[in-house]
Amino acid sequence: MKISIIGAGSATFSVGLIRDICLTPGLKGSIISFMDINRERLDAVYALCRKYAEEIGIKLKLEKTTNRREALRDADFVINVALVVGYSGYRAGWNIGFKHGYRFGGSYHIMHDEVFWINYHQFRLFESIANDILDICPNAWLINVANPVLAGTVLMGRKYPKLKFVSLCHGYLGVYEIINVLGLDPKHVTFLIPGVNHFIWLTHFYYKGENAYPLLNEWIEKEAPKYWETIPPSNGLGPKAVDLYRKFGVFPIGDTCTPGGGSWPYWYHIDEETERKWKENPKEWWSFVLKPPEKNPVVELIKLAQNPSVKVTKVFPPKKSRESIINIVESIACDIPRIFQVNIMNDGNFVPGIPHNFEVEVPALVSKRGVQGIKTDGLPKPLIAYILRDRVAPVEVELEAYESGSKELLLQLIMMDPWTRSREQAEKLLEDILNLPFNREMKKHYK
Amino acid sequence: MKISIIGAGSATFSVGLIRDICLTPGLKGSIISFMDINRERLDAVYALCRKYAEEIGIKLKLEKTTNRREALRDADFVINVALVVGYSGYRAGWNIGFKHGYRFGGSYHIMHDEVFWINYHQFRLFESIANDILDICPNAWLINVANPVLAGTVLMGRKYPKLKFVSLCHGYLGVYEIINVLGLDPKHVTFLIPGVNHFIWLTHFYYKGENAYPLLNEWIEKEAPKYWETIPPSNGLGPKAVDLYRKFGVFPIGDTCTPGGGSWPYWYHIDEETERKWKENPKEWWSFVLKPPEKNPVVELIKLAQNPSVKVTKVFPPKKSRESIINIVESIACDIPRIFQVNIMNDGNFVPGIPHNFEVEVPALVSKRGVQGIKTDGLPKPLIAYILRDRVAPVEVELEAYESGSKELLLQLIMMDPWTRSREQAEKLLEDILNLPFNREMKKHYK
Repeated sequence: MKISIIGAGSATFSVGLIRDICLTPGLKGSIISFMDINRERLDAVYALCRKYAEEIGIKLKLEKTTNRREALRDADFVINVALVVGYSGYRAGWNIGFKHGYRFGGSYHIMHDEVFWINYHQFRLFESIANDILDICPNAWLINVANPVLAGTVLMGRKYPKLKFVSLCHGYLGVYEIINVLGLDPKHVTFLIPGVNHFIWLTHFYYKGENAYPLLNEWIEKEAPKYWETIPPSNGLGPKAVDLYRKFGVFPIGDTCTPGGGSWPYWYHIDEETERKWKENPKEWWSFVLKPPEKNPVVELIKLAQNPSVKVTKVFPPKKSRESIINIVESIACDIPRIFQVNIMNDGNFVPGIPHNFEVEVPALVSKRGVQGIKTDGLPKPLIAYILRDRVAPVEVELEAYESGSKELLLQLIMMDPWTRSREQAEKLLEDILNLPFNREMKKHYK
Repeated sequence: MKISIIGAGSATFSVGLIRDICLTPGLKGSIISFMDINRERLDAVYALCRKYAEEIGIKLKLEKTTNRREALRDADFVINVALVVGYSGYRAGWNIGFKHGYRFGGSYHIMHDEVFWINYHQFRLFESIANDILDICPNAWLINVANPVLAGTVLMGRKYPKLKFVSLCHGYLGVYEIINVLGLDPKHVTFLIPGVNHFIWLTHFYYKGENAYPLLNEWIEKEAPKYWETIPPSNGLGPKAVDLYRKFGVFPIGDTCTPGGGSWPYWYHIDEETERKWKENPKEWWSFVLKPPEKNPVVELIKLAQNPSVKVTKVFPPKKSRESIINIVESIACDIPRIFQVNIMNDGNFVPGIPHNFEVEVPALVSKRGVQGIKTDGLPKPLIAYILRDRVAPVEVELEAYESGSKELLLQLIMMDPWTRSREQAEKLLEDILNLPFNREMKKHYK
């Protein structure tokens, strides 16, 4: 079996992937092909994995290449973690956003990590990978974890129906924060967190077969205020999340209302005073992008890989991550049927009320038979309405803009943002974004 | 055959209805039951119709009552034109809106005639009529022309599936303004104007079997600027409508972008300067509501009905209106299959991309077999996205608020408005609206 990892030098995913690969016995003897266009990162990840596998004692055939088509040859699984324009691209655009009156808060396509000027490059990458797979290894599974998971899954689901494709996001793991503060044993917890990517809600929550929401309610009443004194702002269990739970009756999970999911909705973020009241500070949350650390984490990885006197299993203890990427590979490859949270098309009406040609994030049974979505009871009607309004509608406009190369439709997308107050403001933002050096090609695409 | 008209004293609809009834030979010998809770208006409409029928020489059995259940007895058709809270209710609420920073412009539920504090009373009326019909005359057709056509049709379609129900809006007749300025003979024109109520677009437009859009394009280029000098602001053929046509590729018809349809979208209305640039002035357009004329049109009708020396056919020449209400009655009653523009549920996927449990405005074949929707090619994707965003999402929240009596959801509805900038602003607006004297019952409903 051959697993190819595209963008393998990713600071976010590489260590976890390496560890999970080395700790999954089912992958013994597999070929792992690391691919990245950054030779330095590629070498580091390759060396790190070789050391880790040696220390663990698992036999893997490791390869590395800067040539994607080479990486895809005979691949059974292709894992994409690549971000074409890195954090600097977010930073450059967000600073333009600040200049033109934009704030973090319900701004999915401008002040967020699914911004339209990053998505354009990601769409091109996704399509290019899809075309290469269909050409070189048409039976391979493409597992995508790179953003935008939402728009990307819709694009791929509509345009490449023959591709074996699934998208993953680790945001739902936020439910373990609730499990932790309630002091529950995760082994006895079950949950259902349907929605669309970055907008998922805890509709079912059981502990030892009993509804666990009363425990959460009690914690909110008695413990939450104390807990809030101990946590940084914009926390997934903070006052804003609890307030949304009170308003809609289900708890927002993971990125749903935090800066990682666009700090939805806008009304908690109208000014700094309001944000303080709700213990929200998306700017601080995003400081790893806005003010990147001087110590580059990738540089640290490279040093570690090159230092023969350090045991990497000491630095990263051999414990599997909660990421499901490698487990999903194992479930399909070795036919071990298990349930995972995935992003797929809603063609089985898995979340009623979401269009069938749009994506949803739902549990699925994963096995040799593939990724089979599981039907849920869906979400309260007002949340479905918000999905149509704040996620489906702009993504439709974004994808139509992308397909037709229409600058006017990009403007329409910007005018759907809660912080846009005039067409003039939208036009100025768009001009400045398209004039960023890394968007030279994008500027030509949108006429 | 018996036709019952609920709210028969309507200033907007009564004269046209009377004329169409008297000029439709198929209705000869029918019982026409006028019902209104306002005795004075009721008497006037009844007397007017009697005079009109006599002058025309058509035999009709006219009845009048202030008791709705009496009007419904043995009815075959029930036409509802009633507005529970009249223009004064719009005016009172809009003035509160102005006070809190709201403007006409894409504000469907606050600065428009589908506002939430009017809709509440209309929903109650619609439901009460539906229940009475199912009880008293379950085989009767209910033809609704009262607003909100959009939310009302969705409510009725979902909740009263056994009711024979269709909603009508005359907004699509705006297409005849185009036909007129182009100097075309309407007899040789065909068109298709699908969408949802108050958001319909000319997707097909033929003259003598040829695409007539080139004629429209030529008119826009050569004649439109001159024409714009002759028309009042906020015109359905004005610069804003033409600009939207240029942006989306299909022409907005009737209320779609005029004040009658909520002056969508907001960005032509951000301030008075911008409005002047686009020849828009929704405040002036709505002056018949904001500054009602001293001469009450209904008082004039009453005088006319009571004056034996005046021939009403002189005042209202015997020419059928373009309203389709009475023709639809005739088509069903006499089995004359004809095509009409109607508002019905999208359960036949008549407009792809609109949820199947939502309403659409489409052509339908109307005959003894009922109202059979006709499938269209739908609308450009960005317009479907806007329907999901600006019409489906808020109506879902409004109906859920109505069903559950949730004040919080009314607030969510207000926070979806393009002019809401903070939750505090929304809360203040809602308090002021609920404290209006005619909303006493509504205030109790929303907890």
